[in-house]
Amino acid sequence: VERCAYVAGCDGVSTVRAAELLGIEPSGTIPHSLVLLLGSATEALRAFDEVIERKFPRVALVDTFGDEKFESLEAAAALENPPAAVRLDTPASRRGDFGEILREVRWELDTHGYGGVGIFVSGGIDEEAILELNDFAAGYGVGTRIAGAPPVDFALDIVEIDGDAIAKRGKESGRKDLLRCESCRRRIIVPAETEERLCECEGRFDELLEPLVSGGERAAAAPQLADIRTHAASEIAGLGLSIC
Amino acid sequence: VERCAYVAGCDGVSTVRAAELLGIEPSGTIPHSLVLLLGSATEALRAFDEVIERKFPRVALVDTFGDEKFESLEAAAALENPPAAVRLDTPASRRGDFGEILREVRWELDTHGYGGVGIFVSGGIDEEAILELNDFAAGYGVGTRIAGAPPVDFALDIVEIDGDAIAKRGKESGRKDLLRCESCRRRIIVPAETEERLCECEGRFDELLEPLVSGGERAAAAPQLADIRTHAASEIAGLGLSIC
Amino acid sequence: VERCAYVAGCDGVSTVRAAELLGIEPSGTIPHSLVLLLGSATEALRAFDEVIERKFPRVALVDTFGDEKFESLEAAAALENPPAAVRLDTPASRRGDFGEILREVRWELDTHGYGGVGIFVSGGIDEEAILELNDFAAGYGVGTRIAGAPPVDFALDIVEIDGDAIAKRGKESGRKDLLRCESCRRRIIVPAETEERLCECEGRFDELLEPLVSGGERAAAAPQLADIRTHAASEIAGLGLSIC
Amino acid sequence: VERCAYVAGCDGVSTVRAAELLGIEPSGTIPHSLVLLLGSATEALRAFDEVIERKFPRVALVDTFGDEKFESLEAAAALENPPAAVRLDTPASRRGDFGEILREVRWELDTHGYGGVGIFVSGGIDEEAILELNDFAAGYGVGTRIAGAPPVDFALDIVEIDGDAIAKRGKESGRKDLLRCESCRRRIIVPAETEERLCECEGRFDELLEPLVSGGERAAAAPQLADIRTHAASEIAGLGLSIC
Amino acid sequence: VERCAYVAGCDGVSTVRAAELLGIEPSGTIPHSLVLLLGSATEALRAFDEVIERKFPRVALVDTFGDEKFESLEAAAALENPPAAVRLDTPASRRGDFGEILREVRWELDTHGYGGVGIFVSGGIDEEAILELNDFAAGYGVGTRIAGAPPVDFALDIVEIDGDAIAKRGKESGRKDLLRCESCRRRIIVPAETEERLCECEGRFDELLEPLVSGGERAAAAPQLADIRTHAASEIAGLGLSIC
Amino acid sequence: VERCAYVAGCDGVSTVRAAELLGIEPSGTIPHSLVLLLGSATEALRAFDEVIERKFPRVALVDTFGDEKFESLEAAAALENPPAAVRLDTPASRRGDFGEILREVRWELDTHGYGGVGIFVSGGIDEEAILELNDFAAGYGVGTRIAGAPPVDFALDIVEIDGDAIAKRGKESGRKDLLRCESCRRRIIVPAETEERLCECEGRFDELLEPLVSGGERAAAAPQLADIRTHAASEIAGLGLSIC
Repeated sequence: VERCAYVAGCDGVSTVRAAELLGIEPSGTIPHSLVLLLGSATEALRAFDEVIERKFPRVALVDTFGDEKFESLEAAAALENPPAAVRLDTPASRRGDFGEILREVRWELDTHGYGGVGIFVSGGIDEEAILELNDFAAGYGVGTRIAGAPPVDFALDIVEIDGDAIAKRGKESGRKDLLRCESCRRRIIVPAETEERLCECEGRFDELLEPLVSGGERAAAAPQLADIRTHAASEIAGLGLSIC
Repeated sequence: VERCAYVAGCDGVSTVRAAELLGIEPSGTIPHSLVLLLGSATEALRAFDEVIERKFPRVALVDTFGDEKFESLEAAAALENPPAAVRLDTPASRRGDFGEILREVRWELDTHGYGGVGIFVSGGIDEEAILELNDFAAGYGVGTRIAGAPPVDFALDIVEIDGDAIAKRGKESGRKDLLRCESCRRRIIVPAETEERLCECEGRFDELLEPLVSGGERAAAAPQLADIRTHAASEIAGLGLSIC
Repeated sequence: VERCAYVAGCDGVSTVRAAELLGIEPSGTIPHSLVLLLGSATEALRAFDEVIERKFPRVALVDTFGDEKFESLEAAAALENPPAAVRLDTPASRRGDFGEILREVRWELDTHGYGGVGIFVSGGIDEEAILELNDFAAGYGVGTRIAGAPPVDFALDIVEIDGDAIAKRGKESGRKDLLRCESCRRRIIVPAETEERLCECEGRFDELLEPLVSGGERAAAAPQLADIRTHAASEIAGLGLSIC
Repeated sequence: VERCAYVAGCDGVSTVRAAELLGIEPSGTIPHSLVLLLGSATEALRAFDEVIERKFPRVALVDTFGDEKFESLEAAAALENPPAAVRLDTPASRRGDFGEILREVRWELDTHGYGGVGIFVSGGIDEEAILELNDFAAGYGVGTRIAGAPPVDFALDIVEIDGDAIAKRGKESGRKDLLRCESCRRRIIVPAETEERLCECEGRFDELLEPLVSGGERAAAAPQLADIRTHAASEIAGLGLSIC
Repeated sequence: VERCAYVAGCDGVSTVRAAELLGIEPSGTIPHSLVLLLGSATEALRAFDEVIERKFPRVALVDTFGDEKFESLEAAAALENPPAAVRLDTPASRRGDFGEILREVRWELDTHGYGGVGIFVSGGIDEEAILELNDFAAGYGVGTRIAGAPPVDFALDIVEIDGDAIAKRGKESGRKDLLRCESCRRRIIVPAETEERLCECEGRFDELLEPLVSGGERAAAAPQLADIRTHAASEIAGLGLSIC
Repeated sequence: VERCAYVAGCDGVSTVRAAELLGIEPSGTIPHSLVLLLGSATEALRAFDEVIERKFPRVALVDTFGDEKFESLEAAAALENPPAAVRLDTPASRRGDFGEILREVRWELDTHGYGGVGIFVSGGIDEEAILELNDFAAGYGVGTRIAGAPPVDFALDIVEIDGDAIAKRGKESGRKDLLRCESCRRRIIVPAETEERLCECEGRFDELLEPLVSGGERAAAAPQLADIRTHAASEIAGLGLSIC
């Protein structure tokens, strides 16, 4: 996917392994995890500015804790020189009219003297979104929507730090269990400490989550092809359908 | 309108004059202007708590500066006892999936031990919204949508305090001019100090705003019926249409 | 509503109280009741012509008893000079293609030498209707459709004169009862003398009509706000819904 | 067409020649022409009653001059015994809600003691209409809609009697010309005496009507197949299309 | 129908009796039965060429046994001179994109030097089809679709020759029975020798087919009108509906 | 793609390299090229039967030259024992109602005593097709439609053998050029020997085809990533669009 995107005109790719395969340098901006760990968008921007080589532009991520408008203004004033851009990765639940949010952020930056700070947007961006946002956006970070196949979205999110429940806007904080009823196969997400394990249909809930990494190590060996196939057949059978 | 709403089952009305006409006591919550003037949702809640009689429930307004999620958590912890509710008046541009925002705020309040704090929602609420939000909302503040006629929305917003441009989320800050081109009748909104007054069609821009109140006094006398009718006819004529 | 209509360009209003509030003179044409009482459209026109000052135009109402076409021709010939216009208030059940009816009436008036008699239309007129009928109509009487809110239509109709059942075209004659089943809440309209008071669901029918005016006097005092609210809540409860 | 209709269950046919071919007796009711010639629906009903054998039911035609409601009541009272039915052939332009018209006529007949007089409907009746009107209609006269092919409707109408322009409701009275512009091929219908024969496109108007019967005789011989084919080709060519 | 078609511009008609009534000469091409009896499209073309007068154009029918593409190439080469056209009567089940089939046949004829052989198409042709196929088709044989009424298609097909099951492409070979369950009225088609005569609903199957011609003679007398009407009423009654 | 398909329950894969990566044995049936080279479906089936190990089932490919119906009957009778199945890869242009074609082939096989010969289908098969064809199909060969991304179909087809133009049903025979106008960018396909190289817009045609394999060797080295990206940008620029 990255190869096709790069061939078709994208400026770069952010996956390190893909960049290696293509023989180009990967590019990217501040992740939400840095903001969560340092406690504010401004702290994360300052830390990035302190450590990263000058040749890389400074782009502040402004949607982790607060609203795009006020975090953008704070980010614009956080360093000696205004950053190259603020990045809006606004979660879908807050994206009522993304074009309007951009217009407002642009207005506020201009009103307060930061006309030179661009707006970089990411999160669910596709061709339609680009045509709609081009008046205000200086660049885009495009993810799964660049694939030809309908994407199955997923994300890696911090939900707890040192035992405290915390998560970025748009995500529920705290460790959770993903449960599936062995009988009616309904799935629910509950806080990890939830005791009750009985479905309303009286079935027992099975835990679906399995740790992938633990203590920095892969938690278990990868399954074999034949095992995956058997598992898929059993899951399909569980749906009440059959394959011949 | 208020009379019909009250007859049909609403708990109360927030317009003081309407309450007088109905012979009931008006009710309401903290306005955005208080939050803007005091500088934070928490400060506004504390000031309200200090001044208002005990018999009125404490409801924190949590969408002026920050995101509903973190401001709700701060408001829940701001007073000695948790407030009765947090009020979400989320602006339309941030309302991507309002039900999801409520679910998330509910989750966070519960996760952090504030199961007793309700969620009160307002802003563009209609019958559809109520059916959608009932799982999470404890009450609603309904505005223009309660009228049978399609409403023409408008709002009173603070956009500048002591010369500093500031406005709540979803509104552009700073004093502005509303201009209409005398020739092509296009309308634009620009910062008040904008010098340029020429439309792209080469027509001159007229300023449409007129002060209503100045120094606490009504700025001009109300126009007469005949004048309003003449003005309406001239505006309609300006559209290139005619009335016989 | 009348104030907005007048401001927006309507020529006048027909409600006497509204005209007083606006400080203008009310205007209107012959009502159906006059035609019903005098027995024919022609008699009503002649009576109007005899009594009303010369400065008011003569407009014949032509849809009470007969068809628009032949009543228009009779009205055109009824006075010494042809009237200014005929008014078509055709009931909805007879309005298959109102434009075609106007075209036909226009044709007949022209064919018989009454090219100077205009056509004035009323009854359910809205913007769409006006655009459709402008080729043939000289004026419009617009009612509830001018309101921004979806109107709840109602009408005052004579259904009995001196004990004889009679009503204009489109209305059922005779005194009636409006009944609602106390059990399934189905509503029916029946002749007043109907004995049977049992619903097909076996429930008893309650009479919903109450006299408003009797012997020229208001039949009962107006209810209080609190009573109306209680009544509304009880009716809503009767629907099997609830308000908290 | 009549053969198929009769095979499929229709009670009879009204075309005399078709009845002969099928070997059955034709059936029908009073035509509009009789009402027009005698001057009223009541006169026509009385004349029919005087002349036609007792074995045929009396069915009054009630839509030639007046409204269905009052003409039905008059017809019900016109003979010594009430007729078997009134026939509503309401023109399309007056058919706003045909079901409502039937409900109203049924109500009035019942209210005035004519519960035994049925309602027979005709005019544009198809399967949909029958399903809709079955609650009130006792029978149907179905015309062109019974054919499988989309019908090309036409009618024979009296428009002038002894030099006076007169036509039933829904038809324009007086002799007319059907004109087609030789240049732009626009068609118009004008009173027969209209002098002006120039189209707005400056083309000359040709008269399309030709007398079929004159003084009781066929006015001209029927054209030959080859002539009709040549004529069709020339008309098609006139549309700016071509056939190879 | 044929008269209207001829009047409207069709070149001729293929029904012998219709041509007689119109006083013109009938026209047509090779039928599928000839190809089935002679065993190949090429044999049928040669037989036609041998017997039919020179003045009639040679048109090969190319869809009885094989695919349009290869049978067209064979037909083009079958006679001393290439035929005037190949006729494609492709069955509906093989008509995925009829325009593409024509394009391909045209390409193959041109590629192999038969640019002079036209393509004549038939089978379900209507106005839409003609507009779509005009780029490649030199002529059309139009059947039931030329009627104004929605046609009830039927066909005469050979399904057995000298006891051997054989049918053209798109038809199932062998003698069959058309059965209808006397109870649930489901219809099925089965090979003639099928023994089982019980429906899945346990009802008995009745045979619906009756021989029309046997040994060259009409097998039974035509039914009378009254009998047909009675039969229709009984069939309709069998549907669980009723006629009054 | 093959890995996912196999995991999700497909019986096998036909691409040799994919099978190697998965560690399973590839499977497949007779290709069209074998039928074209040997001259008939029957010859190809016999050759396959002679050479291929007994453990692999015999599946005849029956749509290269003729119609599915007659080629299926021939294939069923071609070997000593009937084959396991016939494979229908019917081209899209012949796929009017694929379910009907299968029903007919099934009928004919049964009628002629080959009830044991299954029907295997391929070509554009997706989930919808499978649900539709399951009554008659014993198995499916699924191609590009199994991918999540919308597939870009392509095929390798023989169009000339020893200098003679020949191609399977649904494909145009003979060597061709794919030309694109350098000016209006219209693309056309013409026989390879076509001299004319001028577009109707007067632009010159460029040849787009390049040989991939020649004399059994790769005709040119694979292009570098940077070259492909530059080429893509230049093609996009040619569309009158731009990338920044």
